[in-house]
Amino acid sequence: MKLGAKFVGVKLGILGLGTVGTGTVQLLQDITGRHPLLQEIEIYRVGVRSLDKPRAVELSTEVLTTDLEAIVNDPAVDIVVEVMGGLEPARSLILKALSNGKHVVTANKAVIARFGAEIFTTANQAGVYVMIEASVGGGIPVIQPLKQSLSVNRIHTITGIVNGTTNYILTRMQTEGSNFSDVLADAQRLGYAEADPTADVDGLDAADKIAILASLGFSGRINLQDVYTEGIRQVSKTDIAYAEKLGFVIKLLAIAKRDTPSSPLSVRVHPTLVPQAHPLASINGVYNAILVEGEPIGQVMFFGPGAGAGATASAVTSDILNLVAVLKTNTAVANPLLACGHQEYCQIAPMAELITRFYARFLTNDQPGVIGKLGTCFGNYGVSLESIVQTGFQGELAEIVVVTHDVPEGNFRQALAEIRNLSAIESIPSLLRVL
Amino acid sequence: MKLGAKFVGVKLGILGLGTVGTGTVQLLQDITGRHPLLQEIEIYRVGVRSLDKPRAVELSTEVLTTDLEAIVNDPAVDIVVEVMGGLEPARSLILKALSNGKHVVTANKAVIARFGAEIFTTANQAGVYVMIEASVGGGIPVIQPLKQSLSVNRIHTITGIVNGTTNYILTRMQTEGSNFSDVLADAQRLGYAEADPTADVDGLDAADKIAILASLGFSGRINLQDVYTEGIRQVSKTDIAYAEKLGFVIKLLAIAKRDTPSSPLSVRVHPTLVPQAHPLASINGVYNAILVEGEPIGQVMFFGPGAGAGATASAVTSDILNLVAVLKTNTAVANPLLACGHQEYCQIAPMAELITRFYARFLTNDQPGVIGKLGTCFGNYGVSLESIVQTGFQGELAEIVVVTHDVPEGNFRQALAEIRNLSAIESIPSLLRVL
Repeated sequence: MKLGAKFVGVKLGILGLGTVGTGTVQLLQDITGRHPLLQEIEIYRVGVRSLDKPRAVELSTEVLTTDLEAIVNDPAVDIVVEVMGGLEPARSLILKALSNGKHVVTANKAVIARFGAEIFTTANQAGVYVMIEASVGGGIPVIQPLKQSLSVNRIHTITGIVNGTTNYILTRMQTEGSNFSDVLADAQRLGYAEADPTADVDGLDAADKIAILASLGFSGRINLQDVYTEGIRQVSKTDIAYAEKLGFVIKLLAIAKRDTPSSPLSVRVHPTLVPQAHPLASINGVYNAILVEGEPIGQVMFFGPGAGAGATASAVTSDILNLVAVLKTNTAVANPLLACGHQEYCQIAPMAELITRFYARFLTNDQPGVIGKLGTCFGNYGVSLESIVQTGFQGELAEIVVVTHDVPEGNFRQALAEIRNLSAIESIPSLLRVL
Repeated sequence: MKLGAKFVGVKLGILGLGTVGTGTVQLLQDITGRHPLLQEIEIYRVGVRSLDKPRAVELSTEVLTTDLEAIVNDPAVDIVVEVMGGLEPARSLILKALSNGKHVVTANKAVIARFGAEIFTTANQAGVYVMIEASVGGGIPVIQPLKQSLSVNRIHTITGIVNGTTNYILTRMQTEGSNFSDVLADAQRLGYAEADPTADVDGLDAADKIAILASLGFSGRINLQDVYTEGIRQVSKTDIAYAEKLGFVIKLLAIAKRDTPSSPLSVRVHPTLVPQAHPLASINGVYNAILVEGEPIGQVMFFGPGAGAGATASAVTSDILNLVAVLKTNTAVANPLLACGHQEYCQIAPMAELITRFYARFLTNDQPGVIGKLGTCFGNYGVSLESIVQTGFQGELAEIVVVTHDVPEGNFRQALAEIRNLSAIESIPSLLRVL
């Protein structure tokens, strides 16, 4: 149903009946005590891979189909709900649905982060909406607040714990003093991590999500390749323990930051030492949280379940509900807060220009004057140190941990290159940024 | 401008130029880097008490007026922004503005909590919107998520720290081990508490806010008199210290809870022992947080500055922005997610039927068997105890602290009446609910 058509209820075509699709159907089939507008929604078609699979929800045989193309081409379908995941055929089906004048609700962060430009352009041309609340933060309402409430602010920073798997792993490493690989194996056994954990533990999922959040918060498109991405495989229990002693916890943060409206944007995902008193430091386990800082609002944080059938179904259905409400107003004119309003790409700052604090751990031959040599090398590149601690020994080698003050990353790297050449330095096992 | 009229920019009539009004004008006069839609807003009239007062913002003499009636009657004004506070003339001016076909944005929790029924009825009859994001939680987007996102859930519980002054006082009592009256006096000196602190410390402000949140979350009107309200004057540093030993912090919570869609609602404000691991336990100082629990979403929490010129201006302006966006769509049909959709009053459960845990502190004569007698009295009324600790002495008297399991409040009160008559019981200085 295009904007402005007479409202006669809304027919959904749902693509996919996995975890999120099933959760969404369950919610829509059990609407007592929920928003009354949900009564006006009909689950009209659900596209699945196989009709024979046993299902947790009951759907009549006319509703279920394996022909997903037919759903996005069906003139009776008003809203296509893409909850199949993956890049293709999801992308093509979304584009086809939009071209056919259907609104789209999707939970697919990978498709939006990679193909958002063509998807939103197609939607604007067709005069329909693409709703993506479920793409970041599971059930947490964060997309809508960014688009509709917080955009009156000059946003400075969006900082998120947006990947539940890595937060679960880091939390367990912290509380149990365990190794990454042991906790990962256990998380896989318990279903908190996938058999192929790459997208989560290497930060790719978080990169998709911060690209989406940054695009909304800073009103510009983001090239996913521009998002610096570092995962948590290199985080050791040793560093978690040192961080704790220094007053920090280690979290995989997704950060988008812009100092002034005309500065380039810094967008990045990396493990980060977070001060223990910081609001994000206490977000543990599979929970997600997104902290938004802007002027004049200050800090606001959104916290909740970052994944799971129910939470994601809540976000998907809230998007459907908002579309139903808009369709009821029978207007042909797009609401500028729901449509995508930016076509330009954000200018992204190179990592060398990032201003941040660093944590580094050095293994050194226990020679007198090592700390002095480190300090001199750092000083040569304008790196000033907040703390420098000789923490202990690993066999013959002395372990030195350094936390810097704010410094351009490029300067720090140059100092580090020089330090690597010092005869006293055996290795630099860890290098982490500090919030 | 009524819904459906041709869009030619939006003229604001702002009532009041105190902290929030000034913050809003400052935001609207400095829009670089904010949502581009703000360009379409004109600060057309600002109503003040005196024209001669020095102001932090520059406004031309045609804009400033002392005739507030004239603003709400001016046919050129599209949106009235009520940021004057107080009950009258705010209520009458809002009603007049609505009757005149103007949309209203208000930060006035007191007026909405008391006169919401007539205000929303008037708005619905006139086909205009009343936007109240700033009425709860300062800058935190919580009203819009409740109305537009979370309403697909069956909401069970809304639990908020919604009064910054009391949270600031309790946080300082906790960290400094100070008395209520000392911290209050200091908070007044520092501007964190009003000269007349009644509305804050007696829980009245929090009651207004939970009435508003409950109304949205549970889709019914709330009689403010039905909100059980207890402030923090009785919270002693002794109880804060005992609570800490038992694993709790004491917070002034505003709670609305409904077990099933057909159960009566419990709505209340009282100091509460919150388990240290609970998400609300770490909300300190003047910050606010609202935790919403529902099915299927689980828990989501919204955290941020609960007051202040900038934060509140952000919320006020986000409401204005949303109205501008709706007005641009030129539709005469109201969006059901923005209009108030309920006319019925919620049925409120009496406090005697509340099921909760209790913390109680007893001063007893140090006779053998006192604990046994306490246990017997509690047992007579089905009150089972989670812990009972003889904690120390106050002069001649022994101090006993009890935490119960969940129990109907009525039963607990009956047991307490019996306990009060025991000869061994000198007094019951503290009685607090436990989350």
